[in-house]
Amino acid sequence: MLKIPHNQVAGHQAGNGKLGPLVDDSGCFYKPLQGDDRGSDEVSFYTSFSLNPRVPDLIRRFFPIFYGTQLVEASDGSGLIAHLVLEDLTLGRVNPSIMDIKIGSRTWPPKASEDYIKKCLNKDRESSSLLLGFRLSGLQFYSSKESGFRKVARKSVRSLSAEEVKLVLKNFVSSNTYTELEPKPDCVFASVVFGGPTGILSQLLELKSWFEDQTMYHFYSVSVHMMYEKQLVSEGKSPRAEIKLIDFAHVDEGKGVIDHNFLGGICSLIKFISEILTTIDDCPTEACLKDTQKIQHFSENGMN
Amino acid sequence: MLKIPHNQVAGHQAGNGKLGPLVDDSGCFYKPLQGDDRGSDEVSFYTSFSLNPRVPDLIRRFFPIFYGTQLVEASDGSGLIAHLVLEDLTLGRVNPSIMDIKIGSRTWPPKASEDYIKKCLNKDRESSSLLLGFRLSGLQFYSSKESGFRKVARKSVRSLSAEEVKLVLKNFVSSNTYTELEPKPDCVFASVVFGGPTGILSQLLELKSWFEDQTMYHFYSVSVHMMYEKQLVSEGKSPRAEIKLIDFAHVDEGKGVIDHNFLGGICSLIKFISEILTTIDDCPTEACLKDTQKIQHFSENGMN
Repeated sequence: MLKIPHNQVAGHQAGNGKLGPLVDDSGCFYKPLQGDDRGSDEVSFYTSFSLNPRVPDLIRRFFPIFYGTQLVEASDGSGLIAHLVLEDLTLGRVNPSIMDIKIGSRTWPPKASEDYIKKCLNKDRESSSLLLGFRLSGLQFYSSKESGFRKVARKSVRSLSAEEVKLVLKNFVSSNTYTELEPKPDCVFASVVFGGPTGILSQLLELKSWFEDQTMYHFYSVSVHMMYEKQLVSEGKSPRAEIKLIDFAHVDEGKGVIDHNFLGGICSLIKFISEILTTIDDCPTEACLKDTQKIQHFSENGMN
Repeated sequence: MLKIPHNQVAGHQAGNGKLGPLVDDSGCFYKPLQGDDRGSDEVSFYTSFSLNPRVPDLIRRFFPIFYGTQLVEASDGSGLIAHLVLEDLTLGRVNPSIMDIKIGSRTWPPKASEDYIKKCLNKDRESSSLLLGFRLSGLQFYSSKESGFRKVARKSVRSLSAEEVKLVLKNFVSSNTYTELEPKPDCVFASVVFGGPTGILSQLLELKSWFEDQTMYHFYSVSVHMMYEKQLVSEGKSPRAEIKLIDFAHVDEGKGVIDHNFLGGICSLIKFISEILTTIDDCPTEACLKDTQKIQHFSENGMN
């Protein structure tokens, strides 16, 4: 009963005879173990992390639940291979808008091989990682029942400038996102999705606090997965905006040192999102009034 | 009336016919402009920074005052050359204990030449920069009138492990620092030098707040210069512990992005210092009592 997930925006993807993750109907996400050390390293991380009593529950909720490993028929027809069994993050989501953001200006662990370091360093320098402290690695924005989703491939978003990243983040929380990125996104969902006590900014700040303190793990090439449903927000229902960390094939022991590389990157992302919220707050009479009207409008008429 | 400074712990040093910084009696520090772009880049930074109205006064005090440039007889006898004229940070200090710490896991700006990047990257990987997010670049610890100073050369401290760095930081604030680094430093000065509302931790936290927000400058290869006088502390006088940022030959424009590299490094240093303070707080009956007795003892008997 395994099938190809609908809402995967980055990483290897199954389909057309390729090897990639699968999902079932009960909420499990099956990720094939990568042949080199990466697969077993990710299993090691999840095993260590899931048993670690020093991880607070407030932080654990930012990680997918780990159910173990299982031999499963591979999506490329190559037979039974070992898969990580994780929580399916998009279970129950109808039309989620998603952004995956790889955190850190450096994506390679110090102990990596020279070849791997060279490859990663080149990618970090060519992409926005070095300058911004993070890079976009995939996204899908829901527009409407008619237009469906806007998906953007990894390569076209990973080298954006600061201004372009800000524009993408604004589009993520705007109603006027159609097939092209809108140069004047309305940001009507910013205050509920990014802002508020349970919004994405607040969740990122909790993560940040933990990273200022935890010296157990160093996360290289790990992504923040941000997700919410426009339709629910526009209907005035709980936005259920949430972030998760994903992809743990390159986690090192912290050995008494904080993960300054990840922390710096997450602080940079926080600054971008804070600035978007500040811009909105700056013009309460115009923007907020407009926002409220729009949300009411959507609420009455659906997303059409 | 220019002379060789007594209290310089890192960087090029004058003396024995070599080119290095000089000081005068009026509180000025003369730093010869380095021949390549570094000299003029540092002048550019100081000029821009000193005129920048967006730098809060609370932050400006962490930077040496800039008095301009001046042609001065070089310390190597090569004639008149241009010098940066800066505040002499050790003016009026009798026996300062000093640590210079180069902040950031990456010391090279993205726009640097391939050769320079390669050189810096190697140094970052060989030293503690990559793992800790900073490296020690020089130190002098005052012991007593008899033993004088313990100075440690740059090369021997820049590759320390996390445990070794913690030991050096503890020695910095201990009374029992003699010619060798004491493996059981008493940390009697930790609570006044690192802790308290005006201590070094509090100053680092102010810097951190600014770095979470400022997007004007990216500081590569900049050091935190920490300084206090044991004698004053032991006499119960104001510790006057202070930090300054120094060495601005590799500052880039921030272009709307925070300096995530510097921020990560300063957060890592903050964690080390916080842990030392926590360890002391953990055993108030023993350690603090002992501290108080020792400080009283010093206070009555001087440093001998």
